[in-house]
Amino acid sequence: MAEAPLFKRAALIGIGLIGASMALAMRRSGLAGEIVCAARSEKTRETALRLGLADAAFASPRDAVKGADLVVLATPIGAFAQIAEEIGPVLEAGTVVTDVGSVKGMVFRDVAPHLPLNVHLVPGHPVAGTEHSGPEAGFAELFENRWCILTPAEDADQAAVDRISALWTAMGAKVELMSAQHHDLVLAITSHVPHLIAYNIVGTASDLETVTQSEVIKYSAGGFRDFTRIAASDPTMWRDVFLNNRDAVIEMLGRFVEDLIALQRAIRWGEGDTLFDLFTKTRAIRRSIIDAGQETQATDFGRRAKGSAE
Amino acid sequence: MAEAPLFKRAALIGIGLIGASMALAMRRSGLAGEIVCAARSEKTRETALRLGLADAAFASPRDAVKGADLVVLATPIGAFAQIAEEIGPVLEAGTVVTDVGSVKGMVFRDVAPHLPLNVHLVPGHPVAGTEHSGPEAGFAELFENRWCILTPAEDADQAAVDRISALWTAMGAKVELMSAQHHDLVLAITSHVPHLIAYNIVGTASDLETVTQSEVIKYSAGGFRDFTRIAASDPTMWRDVFLNNRDAVIEMLGRFVEDLIALQRAIRWGEGDTLFDLFTKTRAIRRSIIDAGQETQATDFGRRAKGSAE
Repeated sequence: MAEAPLFKRAALIGIGLIGASMALAMRRSGLAGEIVCAARSEKTRETALRLGLADAAFASPRDAVKGADLVVLATPIGAFAQIAEEIGPVLEAGTVVTDVGSVKGMVFRDVAPHLPLNVHLVPGHPVAGTEHSGPEAGFAELFENRWCILTPAEDADQAAVDRISALWTAMGAKVELMSAQHHDLVLAITSHVPHLIAYNIVGTASDLETVTQSEVIKYSAGGFRDFTRIAASDPTMWRDVFLNNRDAVIEMLGRFVEDLIALQRAIRWGEGDTLFDLFTKTRAIRRSIIDAGQETQATDFGRRAKGSAE
Repeated sequence: MAEAPLFKRAALIGIGLIGASMALAMRRSGLAGEIVCAARSEKTRETALRLGLADAAFASPRDAVKGADLVVLATPIGAFAQIAEEIGPVLEAGTVVTDVGSVKGMVFRDVAPHLPLNVHLVPGHPVAGTEHSGPEAGFAELFENRWCILTPAEDADQAAVDRISALWTAMGAKVELMSAQHHDLVLAITSHVPHLIAYNIVGTASDLETVTQSEVIKYSAGGFRDFTRIAASDPTMWRDVFLNNRDAVIEMLGRFVEDLIALQRAIRWGEGDTLFDLFTKTRAIRRSIIDAGQETQATDFGRRAKGSAE
């Protein structure tokens, strides 16, 4: 007889790129006896069922979490507070509640207060994604060799933390634990500020009077194109990230602008050595990322892996 | 009997990524009867001969251009003035001189004054590249479906412009003509500023006290990683670009920072709609780039095309 799955019934609240990829990865490795999901839009629920992502799809999170021993919040983080308030009263004792949001401090602010003391909260963040959104963008390999950061409270239930670690490990991820506050600072520089400046330069380029939009598009292969890929990420998700990690993002943005102004000054005054030294230093970091296995041939973030054409 | 090649003898001055890719593309389509190159380093000359990029490799540009009816300046643009001064006196009447530099106004400042009146100058810029450098990084497909911008003077020899257009078309590129001044403005926003901010954020991330370098590397998949790819481009080439397109880069950088500060303010004051509207608008530009065929499955800029592993 087969080993019992890690969870009896997993409820995915939100079934976009991450939720769908989790469903596929959990099915692949038989990590949940049953997978259900909640999605507000009927079209999304139909897609989730058609793709076999969930055994049942509910409009209401409250209905979806009934009988679940694993609840994963996978909506834009701005919806967490309302969902937590809605599901809190019906969660079963011992249920493990986790999330996949890109900001972690806010989970303790928006989710924890609504959960009964007999359930376990283990906030998580799989550092993986593509610029595509929605259930059809999901693929089971998304988390392979990517890091998943868990930020449990100091007094969190160890068994619950171990089960969520085991879940991510079984989906191919490498698990790291840190405080929510430190997570939010690290991700501000490795993810949030990079997305903000990508969105910003694409916006700047589209507002110029001296250069036409068609010129920007034609000559995008010079470097701009890669920024548009990042700047095509889900608007709702990213709005919520910036609204909920404000202080860390503003701190890192301040450092970025300070350094950029210094570079501008070096250009104005023709200080070639300053430019050359920075441009040389940055190559070493690139090399370290490749050596750390965090660069992949799939520089299209696995778009090829799921065989989607673009 | 086969049709006569477009050029009798092509001299590539500099044989890095672009020069090597031109050599391979020209050979593939039989565009030159003979291809020679000039490279300062003996190792580069040996590599060029070993890879069959050139029939002969010279240390001195002056020796390389003898008997050539096509001369391509493919070194970092900071070396153009000295090379032009060196080769000017030995160029044959009717020779077409072009270049592949990322800045075009400076070609009229640094190259034109050193050329005799009986040779033709047709500055060019293939908008294509990878973050890899050197002759071994070259591949014949680099220019396929990419734009090559030519910026001849208003009184340029039409036959020479036509031959350089034919050369790029035969190498798979799409040719566009514009003024050097306009080129430098367009590329400042589509290429130069994107590279500068990529270099800058990688530099900022490596200088933080609150986040370790190993954390930056581990969690780079969140977006930062793509900036490191751009920031791994050739330091000498890019130093020269910024030193020689100063005014346009500073103008575009000013617009970028202005917009970024406005975004920072929107984050500080929790103006979610401002963020959402920008993040939505930027998706449309991404779509246009894909529709224009300037995005490719090879988001690794052809790294796969040349089968190199990273």
